[in-house]
Amino acid sequence: MKQITGRELKEASAEQLKQYSAELREEIFRTVSVCGGHLSSNLGTVELTVALHRVFDFPHDKLIFDVGHQCYTHKLLSGRAELFHTLRKRGGLSGFPKRSESEYDCYDTGHAGTALSAALGFAKARDLKGEDYNVIALVGDGSFNNGLVYEALNSVGILKSRVLIVLNDNGMSISPTVGGMHEMLAEMKDGAPSGGKEVFEHFGLTYRGPVNGNSFEELLPALEEAKELLRKGSVLLHVVTKKGQGYSFCESAPTETHGVTLSGERKEYDRALGEELCLLAKSHSDVVAVTAAMTDNLGLRPFFDNFPDRAFDVGICEEHASVLCASMAAAGLKPYYAIYSTFLERAFDEIIHDVCAQNLPVTLCIDRAGATGADGETHQGVFDLSFLSFIPNLTVAIPGSIGEFRAMLRLSADFRAPLAIRYPREGEEGAIPKVEIGKYDVLHSTTSDIVFLAAGERCLSLAEEVRAEALRDGIDFTVVNARFLRPLDEELLLSLPQKSIFTLEDNALVGGLGDAVARFYRERGVEKQLRCFGYEDKFLPHGEPRELMEDFGLDPAAILRAVKECHARG
Amino acid sequence: MKQITGRELKEASAEQLKQYSAELREEIFRTVSVCGGHLSSNLGTVELTVALHRVFDFPHDKLIFDVGHQCYTHKLLSGRAELFHTLRKRGGLSGFPKRSESEYDCYDTGHAGTALSAALGFAKARDLKGEDYNVIALVGDGSFNNGLVYEALNSVGILKSRVLIVLNDNGMSISPTVGGMHEMLAEMKDGAPSGGKEVFEHFGLTYRGPVNGNSFEELLPALEEAKELLRKGSVLLHVVTKKGQGYSFCESAPTETHGVTLSGERKEYDRALGEELCLLAKSHSDVVAVTAAMTDNLGLRPFFDNFPDRAFDVGICEEHASVLCASMAAAGLKPYYAIYSTFLERAFDEIIHDVCAQNLPVTLCIDRAGATGADGETHQGVFDLSFLSFIPNLTVAIPGSIGEFRAMLRLSADFRAPLAIRYPREGEEGAIPKVEIGKYDVLHSTTSDIVFLAAGERCLSLAEEVRAEALRDGIDFTVVNARFLRPLDEELLLSLPQKSIFTLEDNALVGGLGDAVARFYRERGVEKQLRCFGYEDKFLPHGEPRELMEDFGLDPAAILRAVKECHARG
Repeated sequence: MKQITGRELKEASAEQLKQYSAELREEIFRTVSVCGGHLSSNLGTVELTVALHRVFDFPHDKLIFDVGHQCYTHKLLSGRAELFHTLRKRGGLSGFPKRSESEYDCYDTGHAGTALSAALGFAKARDLKGEDYNVIALVGDGSFNNGLVYEALNSVGILKSRVLIVLNDNGMSISPTVGGMHEMLAEMKDGAPSGGKEVFEHFGLTYRGPVNGNSFEELLPALEEAKELLRKGSVLLHVVTKKGQGYSFCESAPTETHGVTLSGERKEYDRALGEELCLLAKSHSDVVAVTAAMTDNLGLRPFFDNFPDRAFDVGICEEHASVLCASMAAAGLKPYYAIYSTFLERAFDEIIHDVCAQNLPVTLCIDRAGATGADGETHQGVFDLSFLSFIPNLTVAIPGSIGEFRAMLRLSADFRAPLAIRYPREGEEGAIPKVEIGKYDVLHSTTSDIVFLAAGERCLSLAEEVRAEALRDGIDFTVVNARFLRPLDEELLLSLPQKSIFTLEDNALVGGLGDAVARFYRERGVEKQLRCFGYEDKFLPHGEPRELMEDFGLDPAAILRAVKECHARG
Repeated sequence: MKQITGRELKEASAEQLKQYSAELREEIFRTVSVCGGHLSSNLGTVELTVALHRVFDFPHDKLIFDVGHQCYTHKLLSGRAELFHTLRKRGGLSGFPKRSESEYDCYDTGHAGTALSAALGFAKARDLKGEDYNVIALVGDGSFNNGLVYEALNSVGILKSRVLIVLNDNGMSISPTVGGMHEMLAEMKDGAPSGGKEVFEHFGLTYRGPVNGNSFEELLPALEEAKELLRKGSVLLHVVTKKGQGYSFCESAPTETHGVTLSGERKEYDRALGEELCLLAKSHSDVVAVTAAMTDNLGLRPFFDNFPDRAFDVGICEEHASVLCASMAAAGLKPYYAIYSTFLERAFDEIIHDVCAQNLPVTLCIDRAGATGADGETHQGVFDLSFLSFIPNLTVAIPGSIGEFRAMLRLSADFRAPLAIRYPREGEEGAIPKVEIGKYDVLHSTTSDIVFLAAGERCLSLAEEVRAEALRDGIDFTVVNARFLRPLDEELLLSLPQKSIFTLEDNALVGGLGDAVARFYRERGVEKQLRCFGYEDKFLPHGEPRELMEDFGLDPAAILRAVKECHARG
């Protein structure tokens, strides 16, 4: 679409603003249909973002998005309309705010709950540096469940600064928002006396609202008032928007249209999780499932439907969910905590402190592990093997297929210690093999002096791909499905006759399988030549997983070259 | 002291309860004077704990302590009086709740904010298993600032279970409690209309209180009422206690008497931090300091006194503090975030997502790194090198003395990227050397074929100790002060003529310096014999740091044996 300039926006009539909004909505819909991305949240916030750009003066003023997936209108209004068709593609615009992309993006986000803390940091810096700008945090009601938002709220008075929090209340956090804060906000929306206004005031915030966030008639005066109030202190403006606004099928199915994936993508590990947990729950009355606002994306819907009393969505509260699992395990249940790899970083301390230090039988089902693609830096799952590698008492499994994932889940039911299973989004079903803790599977055995230890489905495919190429040159090698990071299959590693070991993992190279295998041989005094392939020491930007793999260290051509060199040396 | 039994407690007269409390208080005071530990918090909760044991039926009912440092009276009342003199000593009673120690300890704690989540987990498990017991979370007002508590509060309604939260409000969280929640609780204490009661009700809690938590006359009926209310739903009982109660010097100096360390212990890295940050702040107007309720323990008092506008204690909010630092850096300030190693685990996601992904110049001053001693599993700082090792953009420094720490801080002022400096509590001052990023210091150069790469003051001392022993057998080796984990001193590593490399680190062996050095040589195709010393793959219990080092992998005798073997082989 044509770039709408700041001046045009500020001079537009009410009618023109509506017209711009219609154009923006259409552009977002068209682009997401082609590029994938977040649809309903962006459709819901068109008027709100337009109004913010109308009333405030960006980039002089600072707009910080919580999570940031709802930034498309902002991108379209800040000089990036002509690039918008590159959204989420390698080298194109990010689907999230990026300082590297525009001065209009002052702070990068991706995980929930950071915006208010960040706004306070900007405001405090402004004060100390004697500068003069407004700081606005745009936070969804889903994030308002997150502990980080509460910690920041608690700090508003401590920091004695001035920020505007625009609470974008659409009642959703991918899944519908849940919990006490949601109840309170709901009553405030209804105008019922809730104590909420008074409490926000204790936290140093002047509360205004609720206003209809899809109506310029309500939004513009409310924002003007908030801007005026902001000269004196911090303000919370409660804005109610409709997720998916303008497209009826998005309005009626906001969860399904939260993130749009392009057709042709496979999506099966999550389905297997739902199916297997339902089977387990039937045979094991102690099985329960926990998620942090991700029921559908993790495949848990069948479990929630069939075992509603044993299924818990606690909202975007990854830490609390971990402690809940640990304590339910301590009290005799068998909890399964399903979570994306990148969001598990939020629960790192609780996985150590609550789950593993007490050696409790919690099973972590870690989805979206490895390169995840189009959401970029903040959503890659490439650190989990590294941050799980050094936690005592923890077993870490890496299924090589969906069938293996099923086998691991079946095995988990009677496993009495912490277990992490990490897997990518998509995969092949494959057979359901017999899996033993800490035992690898030799897929091809050869007399070659080279062996590949490949962890996970993607790396097994990669190994097969390299092998097919190598075979053309008459070079073969053994391929081992390295199903566990912890414990390693020590017996197999000691029995390998090959001198040259190649490790392949869909994870950062630092701290992953390669380092673990090297450490094992070192400690046992066994001399091997190790070549380790995984992601180099960089944050992975957005792009297709396969592109990222090639660009950052899991490049079949490079691996093949290493095989040939190794073979040539004998 | 003599063991007070549950029956005695339940049958005691009001006068006897006071007498028991006086005895318990005296026993706590006497033991902490000898063993060290948490004093004022335990003195403040004697009556509250006695009353809980009187009204409830432990271990059938479940009592979960937040943080857990205030559990001494509970230990004395649950069959451990005769062992109490072993408090915090190797092999003795832990200073925190431990399931492994007693069935009265149903859930291990150590970090703030977990108790309510854990209570909800127990309560839900009880419901699902058709059991019948009461679950009580005892939470301090300091923890009430923590996001995890809020996430759990938000879940009370979701989980539809019944728990009793006893809010122990003493106005302290090591440092005085701060922030909006504190303000609200203060008004509730004063009986002013605050909205707080209504808000807690939205969260599914019946609010009762405040009651004087040092008075049985108020406590016993309040707990009886809460127990009755608990049959219908969840209850928040607001109890006001006086930290240090009964010892006037503790009452008047609760921060100073929060943790008692034994005389003779050195404590100097924190002092250096305070001094250096004050110097930096004078010359650099952009320098600010942030802490999560640990001003004094981290040595920041002089900075807070001299630069109150640039010093921020945000309460027990490690995550928020990280985002605050990242955003202040994005807005042009130079933040120093001082934190204990173990508590940095709470901010792991934000260090990746906010600080390092944006490559912002935040300096992490990581105190209490390595084995920390008497507080046990939940307070050891032995994972930080592992969990910082794989984060792109991050520089990780390990000073070899307090003087070096000063040099690193001075260097940091103009360093424009994320920097972590990790150090133990105690050390030697030493000279202030010239330090360059990624450059090691060769302390002893020999023609021996063995080189020690030792990281940090303790490991340098250990290397010297082993060397002194080895020299008696005519064996010498080179000692290198490995000041950085990231980046390694690649030039030095490549130039080392020695074939045998020993790495020593006060950190878990998995994912630390040894693995990094091994990876470097592997990637460069350099053949070396590495022997790595650090903590084995276990949680370190309580004990003196030196004892833990010897017991878990940094044993001078074992290292000396390895040196001799290596030397013998030539």
